[in-house]
Amino acid sequence: MPDDLSPSMPRPGQLLARGVCRHLRTHGFAVLEEFSPERGKRVDVMALGPKGEIWVVECKSSRADFNSDAKWEGYLDWADRYFWAVDEAFPTDLLPDGTGLIIADAYDAEILRFGPESRLAGARRRALTQRFARHAALRLQGLRDPEAII
Amino acid sequence: MPDDLSPSMPRPGQLLARGVCRHLRTHGFAVLEEFSPERGKRVDVMALGPKGEIWVVECKSSRADFNSDAKWEGYLDWADRYFWAVDEAFPTDLLPDGTGLIIADAYDAEILRFGPESRLAGARRRALTQRFARHAALRLQGLRDPEAII
Repeated sequence: MPDDLSPSMPRPGQLLARGVCRHLRTHGFAVLEEFSPERGKRVDVMALGPKGEIWVVECKSSRADFNSDAKWEGYLDWADRYFWAVDEAFPTDLLPDGTGLIIADAYDAEILRFGPESRLAGARRRALTQRFARHAALRLQGLRDPEAII
Repeated sequence: MPDDLSPSMPRPGQLLARGVCRHLRTHGFAVLEEFSPERGKRVDVMALGPKGEIWVVECKSSRADFNSDAKWEGYLDWADRYFWAVDEAFPTDLLPDGTGLIIADAYDAEILRFGPESRLAGARRRALTQRFARHAALRLQGLRDPEAII
């Protein structure tokens, strides 16, 4: 791929995220990559379902990538369901019990396991949906009308 | 402008909407153009404020454009505040009392008058914010990853 040497080459985790997002869309979910649910936290994919369900997906491209993540448990409080997304070669027995699992590549993905659902409280869901809405619309405007960025 | 003859030339109302959106962003609002708050309705601009405020702006490029709009009163129920956006040449005395007024061009805009605030009920605000979130994210994905469109 000629893009392989470009400075904006996506990281492996970002390629997984793209495949995850494509797949989640087929389930009717609207997705946002690299979303910050609150200051100091950033999840790889947040997805908003047709009924307002909120899912978080963390994409791990390798054992090292997984081992270096000390923050993931903090994300459980920001989603109705939490998933890992990894590629086929990833040693999935590393992953903690009680979490969802998605196998992904850059082009598509498949949900292998749903973790337990832990429904967000109403106030947090409202705040999170509103934050998602604003981030998505601001990014969209940034792409459609770059001169609008202030 | 060479774009004047291109098939994707924006309509005058769309140019006003761009200026409106740029301006609303300076007020901290995230915006979405041509948003459908429910089936069969479509507003020119819906804006979501930092505190979750929802504003609707209808852009009118001419007297004829205004006169042909029989639907606007139906939009009042979908916003905390409603505004018209028109250009400097527009005969503003046509506009009904009790509505907000924005003077716009393609590059910027200015709020001249706030109409009265009529706060949305909680359930409608939640539904509308969620719909806004999903539409914004789906459009964003459509631009970033066109192959994701199904």
